[in-house]
This record gives sequence, structure tokens and C-alpha cells, in this order.
Amino acid sequence: MTITAAIVGGTGYTGVELLRLLAGHPQVSLEVITSRGQAGTPVSTLFPNLRGRVDLPFTEPDSATLGACDVVFFATPNGTAMEMAPALLERGARVIDLGADFRIRDLKTWSQWYGMTHACPEIAAEAVYGLPERYREAIRGARLVANPGCYPTAVQLGLIPLLEAGVVDTQQLVADAKSGASGAGRQPQQHTLLCEAGENFRAYGASGHRHLPEIRQGLVDAAGGPVGLTFVPHLLPMIRGIHATLYAPLLDPGVDLQALFAERYADEPFVDVLPPGSHPETRTVRGSNMVRIAVHRPVDSNMALVLAVEDNLVKGAAGQAVQNMNLMFDLPETAGLRDLPVLP
Amino acid sequence: MTITAAIVGGTGYTGVELLRLLAGHPQVSLEVITSRGQAGTPVSTLFPNLRGRVDLPFTEPDSATLGACDVVFFATPNGTAMEMAPALLERGARVIDLGADFRIRDLKTWSQWYGMTHACPEIAAEAVYGLPERYREAIRGARLVANPGCYPTAVQLGLIPLLEAGVVDTQQLVADAKSGASGAGRQPQQHTLLCEAGENFRAYGASGHRHLPEIRQGLVDAAGGPVGLTFVPHLLPMIRGIHATLYAPLLDPGVDLQALFAERYADEPFVDVLPPGSHPETRTVRGSNMVRIAVHRPVDSNMALVLAVEDNLVKGAAGQAVQNMNLMFDLPETAGLRDLPVLP
Amino acid sequence: MTITAAIVGGTGYTGVELLRLLAGHPQVSLEVITSRGQAGTPVSTLFPNLRGRVDLPFTEPDSATLGACDVVFFATPNGTAMEMAPALLERGARVIDLGADFRIRDLKTWSQWYGMTHACPEIAAEAVYGLPERYREAIRGARLVANPGCYPTAVQLGLIPLLEAGVVDTQQLVADAKSGASGAGRQPQQHTLLCEAGENFRAYGASGHRHLPEIRQGLVDAAGGPVGLTFVPHLLPMIRGIHATLYAPLLDPGVDLQALFAERYADEPFVDVLPPGSHPETRTVRGSNMVRIAVHRPVDSNMALVLAVEDNLVKGAAGQAVQNMNLMFDLPETAGLRDLPVLP
Amino acid sequence: MTITAAIVGGTGYTGVELLRLLAGHPQVSLEVITSRGQAGTPVSTLFPNLRGRVDLPFTEPDSATLGACDVVFFATPNGTAMEMAPALLERGARVIDLGADFRIRDLKTWSQWYGMTHACPEIAAEAVYGLPERYREAIRGARLVANPGCYPTAVQLGLIPLLEAGVVDTQQLVADAKSGASGAGRQPQQHTLLCEAGENFRAYGASGHRHLPEIRQGLVDAAGGPVGLTFVPHLLPMIRGIHATLYAPLLDPGVDLQALFAERYADEPFVDVLPPGSHPETRTVRGSNMVRIAVHRPVDSNMALVLAVEDNLVKGAAGQAVQNMNLMFDLPETAGLRDLPVLP
Repeated sequence: MTITAAIVGGTGYTGVELLRLLAGHPQVSLEVITSRGQAGTPVSTLFPNLRGRVDLPFTEPDSATLGACDVVFFATPNGTAMEMAPALLERGARVIDLGADFRIRDLKTWSQWYGMTHACPEIAAEAVYGLPERYREAIRGARLVANPGCYPTAVQLGLIPLLEAGVVDTQQLVADAKSGASGAGRQPQQHTLLCEAGENFRAYGASGHRHLPEIRQGLVDAAGGPVGLTFVPHLLPMIRGIHATLYAPLLDPGVDLQALFAERYADEPFVDVLPPGSHPETRTVRGSNMVRIAVHRPVDSNMALVLAVEDNLVKGAAGQAVQNMNLMFDLPETAGLRDLPVLP
Repeated sequence: MTITAAIVGGTGYTGVELLRLLAGHPQVSLEVITSRGQAGTPVSTLFPNLRGRVDLPFTEPDSATLGACDVVFFATPNGTAMEMAPALLERGARVIDLGADFRIRDLKTWSQWYGMTHACPEIAAEAVYGLPERYREAIRGARLVANPGCYPTAVQLGLIPLLEAGVVDTQQLVADAKSGASGAGRQPQQHTLLCEAGENFRAYGASGHRHLPEIRQGLVDAAGGPVGLTFVPHLLPMIRGIHATLYAPLLDPGVDLQALFAERYADEPFVDVLPPGSHPETRTVRGSNMVRIAVHRPVDSNMALVLAVEDNLVKGAAGQAVQNMNLMFDLPETAGLRDLPVLP
Repeated sequence: MTITAAIVGGTGYTGVELLRLLAGHPQVSLEVITSRGQAGTPVSTLFPNLRGRVDLPFTEPDSATLGACDVVFFATPNGTAMEMAPALLERGARVIDLGADFRIRDLKTWSQWYGMTHACPEIAAEAVYGLPERYREAIRGARLVANPGCYPTAVQLGLIPLLEAGVVDTQQLVADAKSGASGAGRQPQQHTLLCEAGENFRAYGASGHRHLPEIRQGLVDAAGGPVGLTFVPHLLPMIRGIHATLYAPLLDPGVDLQALFAERYADEPFVDVLPPGSHPETRTVRGSNMVRIAVHRPVDSNMALVLAVEDNLVKGAAGQAVQNMNLMFDLPETAGLRDLPVLP
Repeated sequence: MTITAAIVGGTGYTGVELLRLLAGHPQVSLEVITSRGQAGTPVSTLFPNLRGRVDLPFTEPDSATLGACDVVFFATPNGTAMEMAPALLERGARVIDLGADFRIRDLKTWSQWYGMTHACPEIAAEAVYGLPERYREAIRGARLVANPGCYPTAVQLGLIPLLEAGVVDTQQLVADAKSGASGAGRQPQQHTLLCEAGENFRAYGASGHRHLPEIRQGLVDAAGGPVGLTFVPHLLPMIRGIHATLYAPLLDPGVDLQALFAERYADEPFVDVLPPGSHPETRTVRGSNMVRIAVHRPVDSNMALVLAVEDNLVKGAAGQAVQNMNLMFDLPETAGLRDLPVLP
């Protein structure tokens, strides 16, 4: 079986990563890639790493052409997918949105954080949150998948076992997260210039970041009740990778955290629980869809400490989107996602 | 007045930073710099940035020569200063140890974490912990100063105002700290190679790090009682800079954190409290003795969030040592420490 | 058909890159990986990027076990392969040496530059230099292949079309080459620490580098006569990638350089001649076996200017070794070498 | 004596570097700093490294205010200084232009490369090219100094001794130059994002770059006749530093290059000729006004090889401007330029 695929908005970093993954996927035929600004330009002119492997040019987005594909990925700024998705769904395409338009079920909360009124509330209601480790069965049957944000993927995967098992105080969670600069996108901005972000480290959005309500929604699901969460993102002087350092006060100091995580993720193809005492490194997942997690009990502390790493553009974006596509079309879940991380 | 100064162990990163600062200090004459391994080599051969400005060669350490100086800095591995300091003090030199030999008052705790028996407990008892913002008056009169560790400086300066004021739950403190690779020193090690530490991020010592008891000692002093602290250090893919992200549950949500910090540090020449909403960047203190701090109240959270940055080799090591020397010899506290951070 | 393969010396950067490529090769079964220092350690403990995909432990090297494999790769320091290769060849294994033991035909020259007497001159005489773009047919029949050095690959591929065509003054060639730090290996050394090599750039070996005689040998072959070459390597503050900037005075200013290169490499699967006016970027070949080349005629200059990029660990080492293996065993030349560069 | 100084266009990297240097200059009072876009904003808001040391706000440029200063620095895009300089000179201020408006004596050539008609040819005719090592006496008396470009400074200082002495073939010079990303400025551009320029290396402007005519003009002066030069700039994945690798065919293989350079620069405060066999590193001049130079005779080559490093923002821009100011106002040439490079 070959799936025909389209990408709307292919000039950013999640777009080029989708291109790389789909170009190497054994059961996908990439048919269309759109960009208003670059229509007519060959993809390989912008991204010479794809020379000889992706021969498409960028084209203007068009509902008929897009809707004729089996699946349409949106790698667009927030607010675009909600305008175009209804027409595509009607034509029979399935949609995976890598933006934030369908991630938050409570549209009032969504509007507050994203500063827009939602364009298709009824469609939003049927969207499935595309975190396979929590919502695999719902994803299989979905027409519309909201691909999770980069930070939310790492933070949720790191905290879910603790919350599902009810072993931590859910009111005092801390997620100290660090991301490479590719999370900020390919649009020229001063603060992501090499001369500004290189040899430098800082927090941002410390008083409140858009990924907070998304993370909290997932954690409430897992905990079955309210959670108190402090989430602080930081910008790393590197390109790819997210490291989430997660702190949760233990209710029962006797719980075997290593076993808890090992069992929870035993059957997950893309979650790797490291041996006791490990410190996962972001480079060990670079370019791959893996999340690696280690759990610690710091000396003289009542905290469960979880360290989780992912590639923000793969498991945090394009790779997870392909994983969701695989589930939606009943392909092997790991198809097209077997490339090994390049190290060093 | 000119102070004569010596450095024991000048081939590491704190050594070369001391060289840079003392070479530019208007009231210091650098007389001796020792290194067993490099005896005979001109300093400027190892550190060409000092060509034409530091003409000394490295020499073998010798108590008579060192003891004849007004002040001797130890930039040596742990365990060296405690062997040599007594003889130098006896000869009338004052001693500033940039290592850990005299930082922890409880020598049993010290031995547990550093794996050595202390060589001079009686001398250790008189050592003053060289954090001027807490112990300025004691430093002025000290013969022997224990210069604080890099992480402990940033974490203590970030938490002290909260603890002194009694406005946070001292049992649930979290210090998530990130350091540039220069903190790991100049000895070749695999994990600090550019190919291992570059484009990579990870935690280390998550189960327990030597700086934990040092930090806790200072926090207990400030709080006037026991504290519960989880401290997790991380390695940044860059050279200089520490960023401490500090979380402390507020007892009284109404406290004015900005005012608290502004007042506490109003007269400190090397602590800069940033305007509300700021995110300090490590590069804004690179090469300088400044610490910059911002305080936040994250949305929907009961946490006080403190962001503190320093240059780990300056305020976290050599610069603070010079600040302590200035205090000990009644020089202007900022003498030799006025260079502006180079940005970008 | 499945080829059984062994790697001698698998703990360095070329070793782990061979592991990554062979683990993903559809027609190779990796049987043995040796390391005296790490015998008994699982490969995935040293290289967590391979967790779940390479289950072998490192073992002590043993001629019987190695010799039973179809092919043995040496990723060892210079001087090791020449000691072990004869016994393995005798047992029927084919050998690909990623070191320098068999690269230089004139063993007197080899001894001068490498400071050793050759251990097996008779075997050296039958070694084939593994640059497929020049010696493809000889490689197909070889028992023993000398895999080219990283700089020599880029410099030769950039200059060969000019020399074969006889359009430049062969006495005045300049190769200004720049390499990422992974070319210096995984052994801890001071000058490749992140704090030494990061945010820094310098030349090295400017008076003479071991790759000079190897490059010259290949250029003489291509030119059919003597060449004068100045070769200066530099260390880049990054992990992977070589950029060769090549200057050759044109004999005939009217020659169509673009056509010359396009025709010479038209059938090469791993050499990509870019459109006129291009500037190849090292990142566009990162993790892949491609070389990308652009040719320029600088304004007011009689020079042919060639810009060539490769990944020093792939086309400059492990990838070219796999390409050679594919040729030696009559597999598709691109087998196992189809991964797309990860960008950004 | 205190000089009053103004900076026009202070929001870019050369602007902030001028601010840093002038703020630390013992005989300068910084009076005005202009920026149309940031008028009203305190300088320290944009550049927190200057907090507590530079209290000025940016203001709208105004000829009366600027013209009342002793010296006005232009750190503006090309084309600005030539519009404003005549009025300021008329009011008695002296002008130092860090842009390119007055660097090229032949205005026809200037127009070709910069795409503009010159606004004040008569003023241009009196401009002095501000390379003190060649034009010191003329600078002392100048009203208007054209501060050299970053590449031209390094390339000229590296080649001048060879050309003045007449020991090389002036028709076949090669300048392979590499620059940190700060040379591209602080305006957001895609190709200087950390995710584009980090972990990457490439040439640019290989067919012709604006600094070519400027360099050639200086080399012709030094050679006393025409020169043939191929100049290729490259972008380094780091912030500061230029490394020029210079190749010049020797006419007389017996010349003592080391002595030639040592004598030529014996009295220069900012040119450091390294011992034989050295490889200068860009980091050894970071933040300082020094140029460090090494000369080599590569094995089996008839080339003189010169390696020259500078900080592109200091000796390549703001530092050289301050050096010129010192000369123009008869201050010690090194005043305000004594900060030691921060290493690592």
C-alpha cells in the first residue's frame, strides 16, 4: 500500500524534517508541498540536503489538489490549519496538524493563549491529541490529529507514569525544560541569530508560555484530577534537542520508580527507559523519533526526578506526525522512522 | 599600595582567569605562578592571550617564595591547598583557596563528599567562606578565605533574599543549574571534548553532587534552620556561564519579590537585580564579576521563580577571589574588576 | 546475500560511524566488534544512540573469529592494520583499512611521514586505494583496500577533473582545507576540548601534514606528472564536515569549468556538482556519503576555484569504506548509504 | 584632556563594541548615541552588558548635537555617513566612518561595488584610510578617517611586509579568509540564524566580494604596482574572529620571512608576530585590538604562507576606530584598548 501525502507550509524546520522523513518512508508517495512565498522554487534549492531525492517544487496551496491526497500535514503558523482543514476533511483527506490549532480541547483557553477565535469549533471537537503513548487507539480511528507540541511531548512522557500511578503530589510539579534553537523556527529573528543565541543561555516565557495549558491538559488526563505545574522553558545554544528536567514530590518514598517507568513503557517503540543512574543526552536521539528517559532519587530529597530527552523536530514534531500517520493508516508504527541518530 | 600576589596551580581555567584579572589590577604585582608540570615554560606560551602582558614563567611551588607574597591564591585540585596553606599562613601570607578544601565547616561532611581526611582541621576552623554578599565583614579580617564554588555562588545569591526574609517553604527548594564546559576544567576528558559536549545537553550528578552540601550550608545559615534542597547540575554546550533556575514555594502569595530582591542587593556592586519580566542571559556577564538576577511569579503557580546568571570563572571563581582579596587588603572592592562583558 | 562483517577498533568516531552504517545496511550482518580497552562492555553503553539496534559487546580481537568474517574493517590507530591484515587475508577475509597503513605506495615516503617501518611490504603492494571515483574497477577485485583519508578525499575529488583535463598549472595548486573536530578523534586531547576548540579557529600542520603525500600521490596519478601543492588544514569549531577551498591557475581562461565537472561526475552516485554560483555547505552532507562541489571563476582572477564539502566521518571515512565494501562484494554501490542529511 | 564623542547608529555589533570600548576609555566622554529605530530606549535595555556603566538613551540623529562633539563615529549601513559627514565636518567635528563610504579612492570603482553614486566626492578626496600600520602620520592630521573593513585589515597586515619588501610574485596572491558570524551584523537574516550558521561552514561571495577592491587598493599601495589577488571569504560557525590564510609565491626562496615580519612590526603596539612554527588562534585576540601573525614555509612548496588573526569587531572595526581616534587627538595610541582577551 502506498499513501499519498501533502505538506502545507513546507519551508520551515518542521516542514523540511517532514520532507526528509517522508522521502525515506517506504510506503509514502509525497505528492504536493506548498508554500505561498516559494511557489515555483524546487524544494532542493531551499534544502540542498534533499537534492536528487525530492524533485518537487513548492506550489500554491489548493484545496482540490490537497484534498485528493490521503493525508495532509500542516506545518504552518498557528491559525492556518483551522481555516483549511474542514474543506480537506470533506474531500476525504485525513489531516495532521503540527501547529496548535487543535491541541487544546477547551477553546476558550485556546483563544486566551493564542489570541484568536477558533475558525471551526465543531471540527476541533473531533480532533484527537496525537500522543500515541496515551491515545493510540483514538489516533487509529481519527480523521484529524492534533500533533503535540515539542515541550508537551517530553514533559508529558516524563510525568505520565508518575501521575497514572498516583505516586506524587500533583500540586507541586516543576518542569524545567531546555530546547535547541530550531524550536523557534526558520523565520529570521534577532534572538535566534548565531551571535545572540550562541555561547549564551537564558530562560524565556518564565511568567507563562503557550505550552503550559497543553501540558496541563494532558497531565490532568493522566492524573484524573487537577495538577499544579510550574513550567519554565530555556533556550539552548544548539540546534536540535529538548531536555526536560522534571521534579515531583513523592507521596510514598518507597515506590520503585525504575520499575514503574520500565513497565509503563515496555511496549513502546519510541520510549527508551535507561538503566538506573543514567543521564540521557540530547544527541543520542538527534534525528530520531526516540525519547530516552532516566529516573533518579536525589540524595536527601523527597523528589522523583525525571530526565527526558527528545529531538524537538522529530518526536517533538515531524517524527511524531509520521508515527501518527502510520497509526491512522494501519502501517507498522515504526515505518520510515528507523534512521539511527548520528553521533557525534 | 601594591599587593604582591602568587598563584599556585596556574595552568587551569581558573588559573588563567586569575592571571588575566591580576595582570589588569592596578594595585597588584603578580610575582609568582607555579605549576609542577610546566615549570620553566613562559605563561604566554600556554596562554598566548597574555603575550606582552604577563612575562613570568611557571615555576615549581616553593613555600619560602610563596610565603613572601602578601597573598597566595590556590587554583589547584582539591586537597592541595590544605597541605600547603599552614606553612604559608605561618610565614605571614594570606591565602585564598579557589578549591574546596576549606568551604565546608563540618569536616566529617567534607570527608564524605571529597573522599579525603582533612590535613589541617585547626586551620580549617578559622577559614572564612568568601561570599561577600553574606560574609563581607568576616572576610575583611580573614587570613584564610574559602572561595565559594561556581554553582554555590549563583544558587545562594538567588535564594538568600527569600530565605533571609522567611517568605518561602524551605523544605521544598529546587535548584536546576546549568553550566558551561569550562567548569569541568582544562584537563583532557572525553565528555568535555567538543565532539561530545557540543550540540548536546545533559544533566550529571543528578543523584548527588559535591556542591550540594556547600549550598545547603549557606542556605541553612540564611534561613536560620534546616532546608530541603534538590540540586541538579547540567552541562551546557558552551564555554562560560552558569544559569541557575530556582524554585521556592511561597508561604505568602502577596509578598513583593521584586522589591525584596532590589532592596537586599541595593548596595552590592556585583549583584544586578533586573527589571520585572526580565530573563537574564549568561552572555551579559561573560568575563565580568556581575551576577544578574530576575524574579518571576509564574502564572497559576505558587512558586517564587528566580533566574540568576554568572560567569562561572569570574564571580564563580577568579573574580570573586579578587573581590575577596580587595576586601582583605582594604582596596576598593571593585578594583581590577571593571572590565565590561564582551557582547556578542 | 548477506555479508558478515567485523570491525577492529570500534570505540572511536570512525568506529561508531561504521556501526551506525552497518547496522542499517540491508545486506550486512555485523558479527564482531573489537576493543581491547572495552572488551565485555555492550556497544550501546558507549554509544546509546545504538540502543536497541546493536546488541553486540566489544570483544578482544582474535584472528580466527575475525578471519571467519567476509570483511574486516580496521578503524584503528595507524600501525595496527599492517600487523593483523596478513593473517586475516590468509584466512580468506577481505580487509578495508580506514587507517593510513596502506595508502601510500612508496613505503619510504610512508615511513618518513608515519615514523614506522612497514610490517608487510608485500601485502602493501597489492592494496588498492579506495577512491571509487578514480579506482572503481581495481576496488571491485581487491582483497585489501586502503580507505582514503578525510582531507585527501575532498581535495582529490575537487582537483581531479582539472588535472585529468590538463587545464591548470599543476605546479601552483593550493588546498586550503577546514575540518570539524571529529577528524581529531575521540581520544581526550586538550586542543579538542570544547573550551579550546569552540568559538575558535586556527590552522595546524601548516608546515607539513601527513595527508600531503597521500594527496600528492593521487594528484600525480590524475595529472600524469609532477604536481606542486600547498596544503593547509584548519580546525573548525564544529563536529562534522570538511570544506576544501581549492585554487588552481588556469592555463586556458576559456575552459567551461562547470561542464567539465558536470561531465566528469555525471554517473557518480556520491558526487553532486552544484549549479553555477553555488556555495556548498558542510551541513548539506552531514551524516551522508555525498560530496558536493561548486566551481567558480573569481572576478579579476586567473584561478579556477573549487569548493568541495564532505562529511569527514562518512565519505571521508566510514561511508567510503562501506561504498568500497559494496563494490568488493558486488552489492549495489549505494546500499546502506541512502540516509538523507539531517538539516538543520 | 577629555574628548567628547558621539556614535551614529549604535544598535549594531560595531555600535555596541564602540560603546564598550568608549565606556572604558579613560579620556573619552560619550555624549550621544543615535538610532532612529530605538530613539528613547536606554542603551542598557538593548545591551544589558552595559547596565550601570552607560546611562545614555538612544536619540534621533541631529547635526547640531553631533557636530558639537569632538569626534563622531559612524556605525551605520553604507551610504549614511556620506550624507551626514559634510555638515559635521563643517561644524568642526572630526569623523570616523566605520562603513565603506570613504574607503575606496576611485569613486567609479566604489560606485560599481556599492551600487550608489557618491554624495560628497570632494570630501571623499580628503579622507584618510585608517590603517595605522601603513598610514599613521596621515591619520594624525585627518579630519575624516575611513576605518578599514574587517577582512581588509587582516589581509593587508598579513601581506604588506611581503609586498613592501618585494619578495613575492604579486600576480598570484591568494587570500582565503574566514570570519565569525558577527561580521554579518545584527539585522535578522536567515543565513545567520544559529540553526543555519551553526555546525556549518561555507564560502560566500566566491565570485567577487566588496572587500576585494579595498584590499587590492591597499596591496597596490604597498607593492608599488599592480597585484593579482584571489579573495574568498567564508562563514565560521562562531561569533567573533577572522582568520586570513594568505599564499604568495616567493621570488627568492632564501628570504628570512620571520625576520622580515618581526622587523616590519617591531614597533607596532597591536601587531604581534608569533615565534616560528606558530598557528595563531582567533580566540587569543577575542575582544582585543591585537592582530597575531605567523609565517610559514610549507614543505615542498615555494609559497610564503601567512596566518593572521584579528577580532573582526575590534581591530576589524571598533577597536581600530578608537586607535584612529587616539592618533587624531594625540592620545596614547593604546588608550582604552588595553583589555586582555578573555580565554577560554
